[in-house]
Amino acid sequence: MLKKYLLTPGPTAVPEQVLLDMAVPMIHHRTPAFAEIFASCREGLKKVFKTEEDVLILLGSGTAAMDAAVSNTVNPGDKVLVINGGKFGERWVKICKAYGADVHTVDVPWGRSVNPADVKDFLGKNPDTKAVFVQGSETSTTVYHPVKELAAVTADMPETLLVVDGITSVGVHDTRMDEWGVDILLTGSQKAFMLPPGLAFIALSKKAWTAAEKSSQSKFYLDLKTERKNQAKNTTAWTAGVSLVIGLKTVLGMMEAEGLENVFKRHALNAEATRAAAKALGMRLLAEDYPSDAATGCFLPEGVDGKAFVKYLRDKCGVALAGGQDKLEGKILRISHLGYHDAFDTITAISAIEMGLRKFGADVKLGSGVSAAQEILMRAMAER
Amino acid sequence: MLKKYLLTPGPTAVPEQVLLDMAVPMIHHRTPAFAEIFASCREGLKKVFKTEEDVLILLGSGTAAMDAAVSNTVNPGDKVLVINGGKFGERWVKICKAYGADVHTVDVPWGRSVNPADVKDFLGKNPDTKAVFVQGSETSTTVYHPVKELAAVTADMPETLLVVDGITSVGVHDTRMDEWGVDILLTGSQKAFMLPPGLAFIALSKKAWTAAEKSSQSKFYLDLKTERKNQAKNTTAWTAGVSLVIGLKTVLGMMEAEGLENVFKRHALNAEATRAAAKALGMRLLAEDYPSDAATGCFLPEGVDGKAFVKYLRDKCGVALAGGQDKLEGKILRISHLGYHDAFDTITAISAIEMGLRKFGADVKLGSGVSAAQEILMRAMAER
Repeated sequence: MLKKYLLTPGPTAVPEQVLLDMAVPMIHHRTPAFAEIFASCREGLKKVFKTEEDVLILLGSGTAAMDAAVSNTVNPGDKVLVINGGKFGERWVKICKAYGADVHTVDVPWGRSVNPADVKDFLGKNPDTKAVFVQGSETSTTVYHPVKELAAVTADMPETLLVVDGITSVGVHDTRMDEWGVDILLTGSQKAFMLPPGLAFIALSKKAWTAAEKSSQSKFYLDLKTERKNQAKNTTAWTAGVSLVIGLKTVLGMMEAEGLENVFKRHALNAEATRAAAKALGMRLLAEDYPSDAATGCFLPEGVDGKAFVKYLRDKCGVALAGGQDKLEGKILRISHLGYHDAFDTITAISAIEMGLRKFGADVKLGSGVSAAQEILMRAMAER
Repeated sequence: MLKKYLLTPGPTAVPEQVLLDMAVPMIHHRTPAFAEIFASCREGLKKVFKTEEDVLILLGSGTAAMDAAVSNTVNPGDKVLVINGGKFGERWVKICKAYGADVHTVDVPWGRSVNPADVKDFLGKNPDTKAVFVQGSETSTTVYHPVKELAAVTADMPETLLVVDGITSVGVHDTRMDEWGVDILLTGSQKAFMLPPGLAFIALSKKAWTAAEKSSQSKFYLDLKTERKNQAKNTTAWTAGVSLVIGLKTVLGMMEAEGLENVFKRHALNAEATRAAAKALGMRLLAEDYPSDAATGCFLPEGVDGKAFVKYLRDKCGVALAGGQDKLEGKILRISHLGYHDAFDTITAISAIEMGLRKFGADVKLGSGVSAAQEILMRAMAER
């Protein structure tokens, strides 16, 4: 018997109630019943994005929203700046290039957070930059980039957009789109939103919509102007992801019931506990200055084969964690704190890592990581 | 957000696949499709009971099978012996009295296992005893009674039955009905069988069927002779519990895939780990000589209000454990190892107890129970 624990930074566990709600008989998307659910989701998403703008619901993965962010605002030849410090920074580069942009980068070592001064410096020298692309949380390196400080740089530039991939930061770190002046904010359904993959959410500031009006790129499925027109009437341009939208309504209700600030606190607490556990186990953290609360990356002890370790925990112990990508492959572990994740998920992850390290011959004191985590998790328990 | 962990000694967690299988559209119970499922369940149950006799499937709780065991074999005025060392021993007394038996008891202090010599002594003096009633596992005191040794006492007595309530021992402790000479063995669906409450399973030896043939009690719904006749044709006397039987087929398949001996080993390992953790935390075990592998009972530290403690863990931390009953109310904790339960359920229970004890002011070293459990759970992990 192998019970499964999905503790990867997306897809994440889907709450039982959401699974049940998504299993109701199919309804048609051009009906008042669906429009009512859709309207409720639109309102709920605005609260999470902290914006008065429309948050559009797309049927696609997070990458669809990244594509839309570029193809709706960047024209061929436009100068753009990408903050590139991981796999998803690289993805911004690829998408911008695919649409013919003149791509410049601020290269950030993997594990480091961008210094806003470097961005300010580039923009000072290149005031004609159309957009700055960044990850709120760079999932591959478990780093948080300082969205608020970056927005402060672009806010005064009337033609320069700040585009934030919030796929693992929206619903994890407080992100105040309107107050901070983020121009495009997007995320996906399979992270903090606790849903299966399939929906992406994207909101544009007035400055971004102005750019979108001037877009000369060819596009159809991901044309946000078409979506905006339809979604204002609580319907979608193309067929809606009916079951996922039904699940989204439940999820938004859960987030509201818990309280958005408490959702952030829960992620922060589990992340802090995991970092403390990793340190207690002698595992160096990957994120040096500003770790993300979405997932914690840490280096495995010398001599432990990370690929075999992740495979062993997943296939033999039922605990799915993520390893490293590209240059970090086989070297690190990434432990998710995303979405439907509580203190005992954190303890499960850490106790599994402890027992796994022992199995792989590392010198580890069983329970030492768990107790370090418990000291921190106790804070929330003591308040109850 | 409060994730729920059901770690009580029944009802127990139902595997996701079983929930899905029970959610298929309803079928009628007088159909070849249902008969096929039912036949498969009958075969599977024989393997778990380790008997060549019919294992009858009743629609009712475990108590229905206890009632049937008495009402089908004990006539008014019959002398019976009940091994009474807990709440469920008391239930045998109540049922036997309800059917007019002449009830004698071997009283066992709560937390102790019966001494077979005491039973042998009684039967030597009372060879006209119709039946001996016992729990395989007495859930209220987390004690295992030595079924094999008791069966050795009654096996040579042609008119005396050994009736075993195996509600929390079948599927937990190896129970060889035919080989050992158990005359009636029964259990329920919501323990090791990982199903919702609603089905009870009961098997009678040839000696027990002979007694049933001579039964003079009035009965109807729980008349095992009627059931036996029907179930031989892969149907039930009255309406079958269709969804539960569909789930039972899945569960029996899971038990066979894991291997019955491995199911026993898993329960034993989680129980051993929990006992080690309780000792490491300075909590005295309730079961002094022969602890059950179904659940572990342990005394809370002086000054900790057990009722408030159980309520706090359940309502504020999402971890449902059981407290004590009757004279043990407020004094003990009972931690289940039953059914769909793995190493990380054990760690969740122990880490929650550690943090709860700290919250309740007890002097506890966080992680000390967890590490004691990990040392034992590692044995199974190391083999993988």
